[in-house]
Amino acid sequence: MRDQRRIRGPALRPTLVMSSPVDALGQASSPGCNMALSTCCSFSAWQRRLPFLAWLPAYSLQWLKMDCIAGLSVGLTVIPQALAYAEVAGLPPQYGLYSAFMGCFVYFFLGTSRDLTLGPTAIMSLLVSFYTFHEPAYAVLLAFLSGCIQLAMGFLRLGLLLDFISCPVIKGFTSAAAITIGFGQIKNLLGLQNIPRQFFLQVYHTFLNIGETRLGDAVLGLVCMVLLLALKLMRDHMPPAHPEMPPGVQLSRGLVWTSTTARNALVVSSAALVAYSFEVTGYQPFLLTGEIARGLPPLQAPPFSVTTANGTVSFTEMVQDMGAGLAVVPLMGLLESISVAKAFASQNSYRVDANQELLAIGLTNTLGSLLSSYPVTGSFGRTAVNAQSGVCTPAGGLVTGALVLLSLDYLTSLFYYIPKAALAAVIIMAVAPLFDTKIFGMLWQVKRLDLLPLCATFLLCFWEVQYGILAGTLVSVLLLLHSVARPKIQVSEGPVLVLQPTSGLHFPATEALRDSVLSQALGGVLECSHICSIDYTVVLGLGELLEDLRKQGISLAFVGLQVPVLRALLAADLKGFQYFSTLEEAEKYLRQEPGPEPYNICEDCVPEHKVALLKA
Amino acid sequence: MRDQRRIRGPALRPTLVMSSPVDALGQASSPGCNMALSTCCSFSAWQRRLPFLAWLPAYSLQWLKMDCIAGLSVGLTVIPQALAYAEVAGLPPQYGLYSAFMGCFVYFFLGTSRDLTLGPTAIMSLLVSFYTFHEPAYAVLLAFLSGCIQLAMGFLRLGLLLDFISCPVIKGFTSAAAITIGFGQIKNLLGLQNIPRQFFLQVYHTFLNIGETRLGDAVLGLVCMVLLLALKLMRDHMPPAHPEMPPGVQLSRGLVWTSTTARNALVVSSAALVAYSFEVTGYQPFLLTGEIARGLPPLQAPPFSVTTANGTVSFTEMVQDMGAGLAVVPLMGLLESISVAKAFASQNSYRVDANQELLAIGLTNTLGSLLSSYPVTGSFGRTAVNAQSGVCTPAGGLVTGALVLLSLDYLTSLFYYIPKAALAAVIIMAVAPLFDTKIFGMLWQVKRLDLLPLCATFLLCFWEVQYGILAGTLVSVLLLLHSVARPKIQVSEGPVLVLQPTSGLHFPATEALRDSVLSQALGGVLECSHICSIDYTVVLGLGELLEDLRKQGISLAFVGLQVPVLRALLAADLKGFQYFSTLEEAEKYLRQEPGPEPYNICEDCVPEHKVALLKA
Repeated sequence: MRDQRRIRGPALRPTLVMSSPVDALGQASSPGCNMALSTCCSFSAWQRRLPFLAWLPAYSLQWLKMDCIAGLSVGLTVIPQALAYAEVAGLPPQYGLYSAFMGCFVYFFLGTSRDLTLGPTAIMSLLVSFYTFHEPAYAVLLAFLSGCIQLAMGFLRLGLLLDFISCPVIKGFTSAAAITIGFGQIKNLLGLQNIPRQFFLQVYHTFLNIGETRLGDAVLGLVCMVLLLALKLMRDHMPPAHPEMPPGVQLSRGLVWTSTTARNALVVSSAALVAYSFEVTGYQPFLLTGEIARGLPPLQAPPFSVTTANGTVSFTEMVQDMGAGLAVVPLMGLLESISVAKAFASQNSYRVDANQELLAIGLTNTLGSLLSSYPVTGSFGRTAVNAQSGVCTPAGGLVTGALVLLSLDYLTSLFYYIPKAALAAVIIMAVAPLFDTKIFGMLWQVKRLDLLPLCATFLLCFWEVQYGILAGTLVSVLLLLHSVARPKIQVSEGPVLVLQPTSGLHFPATEALRDSVLSQALGGVLECSHICSIDYTVVLGLGELLEDLRKQGISLAFVGLQVPVLRALLAADLKGFQYFSTLEEAEKYLRQEPGPEPYNICEDCVPEHKVALLKA
Repeated sequence: MRDQRRIRGPALRPTLVMSSPVDALGQASSPGCNMALSTCCSFSAWQRRLPFLAWLPAYSLQWLKMDCIAGLSVGLTVIPQALAYAEVAGLPPQYGLYSAFMGCFVYFFLGTSRDLTLGPTAIMSLLVSFYTFHEPAYAVLLAFLSGCIQLAMGFLRLGLLLDFISCPVIKGFTSAAAITIGFGQIKNLLGLQNIPRQFFLQVYHTFLNIGETRLGDAVLGLVCMVLLLALKLMRDHMPPAHPEMPPGVQLSRGLVWTSTTARNALVVSSAALVAYSFEVTGYQPFLLTGEIARGLPPLQAPPFSVTTANGTVSFTEMVQDMGAGLAVVPLMGLLESISVAKAFASQNSYRVDANQELLAIGLTNTLGSLLSSYPVTGSFGRTAVNAQSGVCTPAGGLVTGALVLLSLDYLTSLFYYIPKAALAAVIIMAVAPLFDTKIFGMLWQVKRLDLLPLCATFLLCFWEVQYGILAGTLVSVLLLLHSVARPKIQVSEGPVLVLQPTSGLHFPATEALRDSVLSQALGGVLECSHICSIDYTVVLGLGELLEDLRKQGISLAFVGLQVPVLRALLAADLKGFQYFSTLEEAEKYLRQEPGPEPYNICEDCVPEHKVALLKA
């Protein structure tokens, strides 16, 4: 969808721009000077650390409109979600809202993804409930410590680790999460109650209690979904704007476009209106969001000790109590947040700076804990709503944050009337397109082996999202290691045998190489042009190979050595190591035809020559 | 040392031969037909499974002599060691001997290393003592289950895993183990008692109690060491045999050679003789090996339940009791055994078949458990003795095994008099040369980064050998992954910019590639000749890269695509993907000079052409 929007209509250019500092610069300035900017000069360094410096100068009224709409939609989604997730975490409802705004403000300054929204999520709330014993003090302290750990990772630039989350893993996670989140809303859509949260139990009980569907909610929910779908289709098939349109058409077009883009907010608020009017009549057919605790959270240091009924618990004791949580929560927070960011980045084709994301989420948790937040991360559902509403910059978050703060003070009475079914419809429509059906066929065509991590992730994500992602990553890394351990070796029979490893040569491949050479059992040429570096194990393996061949009276000539490789081999002083600059020379030599002698680097090696080469 | 021996004198040819089936065949038959034999034909398949078929036909009297000497030396070492290790494992002494012979017989048939000797070891005994509560029934069952697990791994060909133990790791392990084992014998050399087994405590207490040195043992030990050293030097500097030597010289030469090669057995038995003569005089200045329990172990099924004072423990309960031991013991057994095998294989330049080794050790444990053995593995110290004594084939093990069995029945009274100091001297002299001092300098010259895994392994091995090996392996795999995630990309400024990844391209490198291309911010040629395969993440990354460039009005041409890569890129149907067969064509095209058009594979792609290529 986004791609089409990006190509059609004026509203879409901005969505291109805000992607990552580099791209933003690429737009702001002429492409040519991109390199200069994004490498050395300190302003660009600042822009890397504070990405908003890159896009804020180019900020337009157009973007403002989009961001407000998106921020409003997300805000209308996050408030009831926050209350629900607080329950999941076993904390008083207001803690959900306390956790819902800091991310918006911090991410405005530090975020590199326009879509990502930080806040309370189902998975994180579950983890929190494991490790904090339904005790707010623990939850807030956990947020503080997790934030510090994540900041440390960010400064240590451990974002590298996240390059190892391969695309199939992300796709598998995305699709599975779409199903989980979507189905999780069915119960709200049908007004079912007392449905467990675990996916499989949820499916079972949903169908078990399908009979108890509340007519009002079901009808409202379906109507909302149909409306949302219709508005969505309208916008996708809107004719592009022409300057030579008559103003009337222009106006109506703008009107339609706004309403179609703000459809989430539109549908939710009109549903609330309907619910309110019913309330007035005294009969309420819908389940409503209901009462929300008022008042802003107090600004205070995270509790480094807590007094319970059984006396005061010291900081060290609290840390011991949380134990593994201090590893699991920060890591899962990063994993989820950056998986979500990467998923939308690849969907909307912009790039996120992983280390920058670490800083953003770390700071969010640290600062959030000063305002009684519990650990937060990137929310999949709300990020989807954000993207669907056509957000252009993280500025949308400001609206969301403000809305949450206002809601804490004044608006609770209004949100009271939001029917849960309407929100369910919004979320379902938001995550539906994220289930990528084509990926399986695509992988089958492009790289079948990649179906393994995809399926591992997809299936395990229904059990526990974190296990899914970890298992998938593990599988893809193992596949990678296997391909490194068993490189293809091209054997071309000619006047002499030429063996050529078709890619790099690393230590796990040593045995494989020796076997393949010895299995030929007659020497020849080892063509190394594809090998750019070499480790000690390989060097030693080649040395042993040369010795084995020497015993059988066979000689092996090296050709096409890149400098670092040659240097390593020379430094190792291998017995019987001889190399040629060209394949022809090597063949001539092996066929005992007249030609240049090999460079022999062994006992009878010329020291000067060697030193020269080593210095080369 | 071995290398020199291999090059000098007739005694040395055989040591070349028995290395691995392939090499053995290489000797038995003309090198040329090696390939045919070692690939398809079923006889060679049999030889792979039963390596003794490969070397037995070539077995010579010469080898027999060497093997008997080595087997005897190892036998004289293993018996007291077995008794000591049984105590470490918290079992009655005879269980050490029960565990000491099965490996010899099994390895004769299945082993691919001539040096390795399976049996009770210090590390394994320690692990056993953790998991079996000093209860023989548990130990024997653990041996049975570990064997089954190891056999399963062997049949699943998980030996691949052991290619990931890089050479620096093995060197680090070897050097550290040499120090640990060597120092562990000091206490016996000096006749110190009540020294703990943990390395650091051992060092501390050894120096603490240095005053309690027993004169007799110290003198004997030092004399033995000097003798062993002298005999060793004699053999290393023996002149090669000439057929035209006078028979007298021939004879004396043979005599000297035998005594120098059998020096371990020689020294130990003469020490025993001295101790015996002292015993006769009634005064005994040495600590002796002492009484050994007699009688062969009963042949019976491993105990699947055990009756203790608190009633019968069922099989499932026993398994639960052993818990993690069922994972740790088999894995550490494999790791230790194959690390030792690999260490000596690389020292004596022959290769071991990891999967075959798994089968050998697995079968040893399984069968051994039927004769009341506890889990065994490759013994570093005795393997060193074996290699030092110049063993030629695993047949040496038969002698060792027979010796152990005989000792159980008849010879215990003779072994009674072996002074512990003499055995200590043998072990110290055996492990001393294994401390590789040159490796550090070598790595510094060849590949400095490899010093990391080396040091990690070396240092941690003093704490716990298994942690050392695992940490080192982890470090080297992480280094490998990092080099894969950040491939060198050669940028050559010419008429047009040419970017060339200098080795393969795998999914973790996607971001790095995109960044380096975008940072250039002007299109050009991507030279892919070094890339032999490509996964979906990379394909997608290239697609996004092409789109980013398209937005900036820049075009990127692909050159030198290998067929699998081209096929993957075509299957993905990337927008704006264009490739040329040669660099010149690409440059011409990018400089808008007249030349062949690119193959454009996007919307306007010619289906037939594509299909043809995909079928290619």
